[in-house]
Amino acid sequence: MAEHREGSDHAFSEAQREGLYRAIHERRDVRAQFLPDPVPTEVLARLLDAAHHAPSVGFMQPWDFLVIDSLAVREQVHRLFQRENAKAAEHYANERGELYRRLKLEGILESPLNLCITCDRSRGGEHVLGRNSIVETDLFSTCLAVQNLWLAARAEGIGVGWVSILDQEELASILNLPEQVYPLAYLCLGYVSEFLEQPELARSGWRQRLPLAELVHGNGWGEPLLDATLHEALAGGRD
Amino acid sequence: MAEHREGSDHAFSEAQREGLYRAIHERRDVRAQFLPDPVPTEVLARLLDAAHHAPSVGFMQPWDFLVIDSLAVREQVHRLFQRENAKAAEHYANERGELYRRLKLEGILESPLNLCITCDRSRGGEHVLGRNSIVETDLFSTCLAVQNLWLAARAEGIGVGWVSILDQEELASILNLPEQVYPLAYLCLGYVSEFLEQPELARSGWRQRLPLAELVHGNGWGEPLLDATLHEALAGGRD
Repeated sequence: MAEHREGSDHAFSEAQREGLYRAIHERRDVRAQFLPDPVPTEVLARLLDAAHHAPSVGFMQPWDFLVIDSLAVREQVHRLFQRENAKAAEHYANERGELYRRLKLEGILESPLNLCITCDRSRGGEHVLGRNSIVETDLFSTCLAVQNLWLAARAEGIGVGWVSILDQEELASILNLPEQVYPLAYLCLGYVSEFLEQPELARSGWRQRLPLAELVHGNGWGEPLLDATLHEALAGGRD
Repeated sequence: MAEHREGSDHAFSEAQREGLYRAIHERRDVRAQFLPDPVPTEVLARLLDAAHHAPSVGFMQPWDFLVIDSLAVREQVHRLFQRENAKAAEHYANERGELYRRLKLEGILESPLNLCITCDRSRGGEHVLGRNSIVETDLFSTCLAVQNLWLAARAEGIGVGWVSILDQEELASILNLPEQVYPLAYLCLGYVSEFLEQPELARSGWRQRLPLAELVHGNGWGEPLLDATLHEALAGGRD
C-alpha cells in the first residue's frame, strides 16, 4: 500500500521479524523442564543487557539484578514457596484442588540459576518525569525489563519461570534488600529439555487461551470496531 | 561448551536472534516522529496477537484492547494530558523547568492510532492461581503484554509511545471502562520518520543510561558476583 511506504522502511527483514514473533509465541513459563547445564557468562550478560534496555518512566531504570546461584539461598526461597503454596492450595476444593496440587509451579532448585529483578522505588529522586500521575509506573517499567529478558532467553534456548507464590517481605529479607527496593520478579533460568507447545496451564486443563477478538473494543469499552476486517484478522490468530 | 550443547539446541538462528535483539535495542518511546500514514489492519492484528501471547499469572489474560482512532476521543485525552502535565511541570524550577517544558512528551493527536491496554482486575474469579501472595501480578502481566506489542511494533517499523501523564480515573471515564477495569497503558502508535539512536531523554540531557555492571549483584544485595568475568562482559554492553 503506497500510503505507508515511507514509514514502513524501518521495518525489519522477514527473518528478523520471524525471530521476534517466534520468541513471543514460543516463550513459555517453564517449571518442569530445566536441565542442570550452566548458563554461560556471555549468554547471561546478553540477557541482562536486554533487560536493561527496556523502556522506563522518566528513563528511571529502577531495576537491579541479583544473580542467585547459591544452593543455600535457593533452598531458603524454596521453603518460602512451599509455605505460601500450601496456603494457596486451601482456596481450591475437590477436583480443582487435586489438579492444583498436581501442578508443578516452580523450578527453584532444579534450574541452575535464579534471578531476582528488583525495583528501587526511590531511584531518580522525588519527582521522576512521567511518574506524577501513577506512582506504580516504576514497577510497570521493571515488568518491561522482565519481558525483554524472557524473550531474549527464549531466543537463546533458555527457559524462564516466574515464581509469584512468595511472600515478598520475607524474600526481601533473605536477599538483604534495602527498604526502598521491591523484589518484583523471582525468576528461574536454565536450558530445557523442551519448550512445551502449549502453556502448562492450558495443557493441564486449568484454563484456556481466550479468543482475542472478544478482547478488542472500539473507541470505548464494548463499542464495535470501525474496521470490521480487524475482527476477521484477529480470529485467524495463533492459538 | 559441550556441557550445555543439548539444551542450547532450542536456540534460534543467528538472523532470528538478531531480529529480537534489534527490536530490544532499537525500540524507542516515540513522541515526536509520528507520520500520519494509517497502520494497516493486518499489521495491527499481528501487534495485538503479540500482546495477547504475553505470559500472565494463572493464565489470567487480564488484558483488553481499545483501538482508538476517533479524533474526538483523542482530543479529550489530549486535554487530560495537558492538565496533568501542567501540574507535573510545577515540580521543576529554573533550567530543569525550562528543559521540562521544552520536552515533547506525547503524540496523541499526531499519531494515527491510540491504543489503551486495560487490566480487568476481576477476570478469572476470586482466586487466580499464583496471585494469592501479590495481588498486583495482574497489572504486571498486562505490562508484559505491553512490551510484547512494543517490540513487535518496532520490528514492523511502527513507533509506540506510552503516555503516563494522565489521570487514570478520568481516562477510565472517557473510555467508559467498567469499575473493575484499570487503564494500564495509553499508547500512541504509528509509522515514524525515524527511530532516534538514543532515547529522547538521554539525547536532551535529562537523564543518562546507568552502567549495567553497577546494577548487578550476587546472592544478596550488594554482594559481589561469584563469576567475576560477568562484570567484564556487562561492561562491554551497548549504550
